[in-house]
Amino acid sequence: MSFDFRFDLLATDGMARAGVFHTPHGPIPTPIYAPVGTQATVKSLTPRQLADVGAILVLANTYHLYLRPGDELIAELGGLHTFMQWPGPMLTDSGGFQVFSLAGKRGQKSLRAIDDDGVTFRSHIDGRRHRFTPERVMEIEQNLGADIAMVLDECAPPDDYEYNTRALRRTHAWAERCQAAHHRPDQALFGIVQGGIFPDLREQSAAFLTQLDFPGYAIGGLSVGETKEQMLETLAFTTPLLPADKPRYLMGVGTPEDLVEGVARGVDIFDCVLPTRVARNGQALLRTGKLNIRNARFAADPAPLDETCQCYTCQHFSRAYLRHLVIAKEMLAATLLSIHNLHVMLTLIKEIRAAILAGRFESYRAAFWEARAH
Amino acid sequence: MSFDFRFDLLATDGMARAGVFHTPHGPIPTPIYAPVGTQATVKSLTPRQLADVGAILVLANTYHLYLRPGDELIAELGGLHTFMQWPGPMLTDSGGFQVFSLAGKRGQKSLRAIDDDGVTFRSHIDGRRHRFTPERVMEIEQNLGADIAMVLDECAPPDDYEYNTRALRRTHAWAERCQAAHHRPDQALFGIVQGGIFPDLREQSAAFLTQLDFPGYAIGGLSVGETKEQMLETLAFTTPLLPADKPRYLMGVGTPEDLVEGVARGVDIFDCVLPTRVARNGQALLRTGKLNIRNARFAADPAPLDETCQCYTCQHFSRAYLRHLVIAKEMLAATLLSIHNLHVMLTLIKEIRAAILAGRFESYRAAFWEARAH
Repeated sequence: MSFDFRFDLLATDGMARAGVFHTPHGPIPTPIYAPVGTQATVKSLTPRQLADVGAILVLANTYHLYLRPGDELIAELGGLHTFMQWPGPMLTDSGGFQVFSLAGKRGQKSLRAIDDDGVTFRSHIDGRRHRFTPERVMEIEQNLGADIAMVLDECAPPDDYEYNTRALRRTHAWAERCQAAHHRPDQALFGIVQGGIFPDLREQSAAFLTQLDFPGYAIGGLSVGETKEQMLETLAFTTPLLPADKPRYLMGVGTPEDLVEGVARGVDIFDCVLPTRVARNGQALLRTGKLNIRNARFAADPAPLDETCQCYTCQHFSRAYLRHLVIAKEMLAATLLSIHNLHVMLTLIKEIRAAILAGRFESYRAAFWEARAH
Repeated sequence: MSFDFRFDLLATDGMARAGVFHTPHGPIPTPIYAPVGTQATVKSLTPRQLADVGAILVLANTYHLYLRPGDELIAELGGLHTFMQWPGPMLTDSGGFQVFSLAGKRGQKSLRAIDDDGVTFRSHIDGRRHRFTPERVMEIEQNLGADIAMVLDECAPPDDYEYNTRALRRTHAWAERCQAAHHRPDQALFGIVQGGIFPDLREQSAAFLTQLDFPGYAIGGLSVGETKEQMLETLAFTTPLLPADKPRYLMGVGTPEDLVEGVARGVDIFDCVLPTRVARNGQALLRTGKLNIRNARFAADPAPLDETCQCYTCQHFSRAYLRHLVIAKEMLAATLLSIHNLHVMLTLIKEIRAAILAGRFESYRAAFWEARAH
C-alpha cells in the first residue's frame, strides 16, 4: 500500500497558507524552511544539534551524493535517513540544477551537454563523465530514499523567452518520464513548474504539470539571476495556477525577507544554504538585519548575538568569544553561528505559521519590515 | 579567605592512586585526563558536547590566549570559564613550553631568546616581540583565572646533563618568583619538577620545590624527545620524591598506553591534544589500538567505530558514514571523531580509577595490554 502524501490546508490569510504535509518520517508543518545538508550533513552540525535548533525537513543534494559516496552505497546502508541519522522528513533535489550550474563554473569548455534525452556532464571532483536522464535520476533518488524527490527539469535563464519555450518542452517531457519511472510508494515525487518570468509560459507549465497530478509542486527557475521584483512577481502569478490542496515549494530560496514575502505569495516550502554558508564566513542573521562578527567593534562585546534569541549560542556565548573563534579560525565558530542562523530562520517560519493560523499574517509582515527599517 | 585546594587520597594500589582534588569549579576525581582547549575551545566541540563526553578538567594554553584574544580581554569578560563557557575545573599551562618550542620551528633565526630574568620571543601569528617573565606569566594566568595555574619553567633537552643542571637553577628561581607573584586565592599554583632523565637532578628539583609547598606538582620535561622507556623510568623514580598528599601532573601526555603506565607510576593528572588532533586526521582510538577511517575497506562498513562504545558517534553512525565525511572534507568528521576519541580516553581513565578503588588495578592493566596484543 502506498503512503498517503496528504496535504492538509489548515488556514489561509490572503495568499499565505498554513498546513501540514504528511510524510513517512513525520508531518511537515507548513510554511517550513529546510536546512541544506548537501553531502548528507548540514555542515558543522550533528543531527542532534539540528533537531535542537528546531529543524524538521532537511534537504540533501542528489548530484553530490550520486558522485560521493554513491547512491547505491547509501541504499545498501539503509538509505539517506539511516546513513546520516536524520530521523525526520527529508527531500532530495534532482541534481539537475547543480549539473546545469557546471556550465559557467570555469573559464573553459562547458562541463555539460544537454540533449532531449538527458544531460552529460563531468564531475567537479575528478572530471569523469556522467549522464543524467529522467530515468537515471529517478533511480538515484529512489536509492537515496528521501520522503520527497524532485523531477529532473531544465533550468533556463529566467528572462530568455525563446530558451524558456524550448526548455519547457523538455521539462514537461522529462516530468512525464520521471513520473513513469518513479515507483517508490514511500516517496512523494514533486513536479517543477518552469517558464522563467513569463506568465504565459508559467501558465502552460502549471496546466501541463497539474494534469499529471503530482503530490506537490515546486516553482523552479527562480533565484537564478532575475531581480527580486521579478521573482516576487513571478511567484504572485504562478502560485494561483497551482492546486490549492498541494504544497508549493520555492527551491533554493532564501533570506529571512524571502521567507516572509514568499509566504505572502502562497509558498509553503523553502530551502537555502544561506544561513549555514554565511555562518562559515562569520556572519550572523538578526531579526533586524545581519552582523559580521569579524568586525573589530565586537572584540570586547559581552552581549550575545541577539539578546532576545533563545538559541544555544545566544544563551551561552558573547560576541567577543564568537569573534575570537572566527579570527582564530576555530571550527566551533561555524558550529555556533550555524546554530544561531538556523534558529533564526526556523523561529521566523514558526512565527509566520502561527500568525497565519491566528489570521494576523499581514500585521506580522508589517512588523517584520518595520524592524528591518531601523 | 582562600580556597582550600585539598587533595584527598582515597586509595592506592601499588604506585597507582585514586583521589579527589578540590577546586572552586568542582572536585576533580583522579586519576583524570584533561582534553586540551588550546584557544579557549576544544576544537570542533561545544562545551555541551564536551560535558556529554564526560570531560571534567579542561586545559587551555596561556601562550595562545595571551596573544589572541589577550588575557586582559578575557579577564574583562569574566575570565576563561565565562569566556568559553566551561563550568567545570580548568587548568592553564605557563606558556613556557610553547615559547621554548618556537626555537626550532622554522629553518631560520630562533624566535626566542632566554635569559635569567625571562624569555623574549616572537609571536607565531604576526612576528611581533613579546616577553615572558615569571611575574608577567603569573599576571596572565591570574587574568585567565583557571582553577590551576602552572609556574614558568625552562624545558631542557631531556638527556643533556649540563643543560639540565643550568636550566634547573633558573626553573627553581622562577618557581620562587612565580609563587611570590601569585596571589589569586581561588587559583592553585602548581610547581614543576625538572631535571631531564637524571635521578640526581630530579631529586634536587623535587626537594627544592617540595619545600616551597605547592598545592600540586607537575613532572615536566617529559614526552619531549626521550624514549618511552626513559619517560617511564623517570616517572618511576620521580613520583616517590613528591609528597603523597599532593596531586601529580604529567604534562602533555598522552596515549591510552601512557595513561595506564603513567598511573602505574603514580601520576594523577594527564592532558594531551592527541585524541582531538588525530580525530581531525580521520583517526579513531580503539580499545585495541587505532583505526584510520580513510581506509577504503571502511567504505561500505555499516558497523560503528567500536561495537562496545557508548559514545554519541558509535551509538549513531557507521564507519561508512564517517569515512564519507572525512573524504568529503566535512567538518562534522572532526566533531564525531573527537567525541569518540575523547570518550575513549575519559572512559579509560574512569575505569582505571574504579580499578584502583577496587584494588584490582594490576589485573586491569594486564587486561588492557592483553587486548592490545591481539
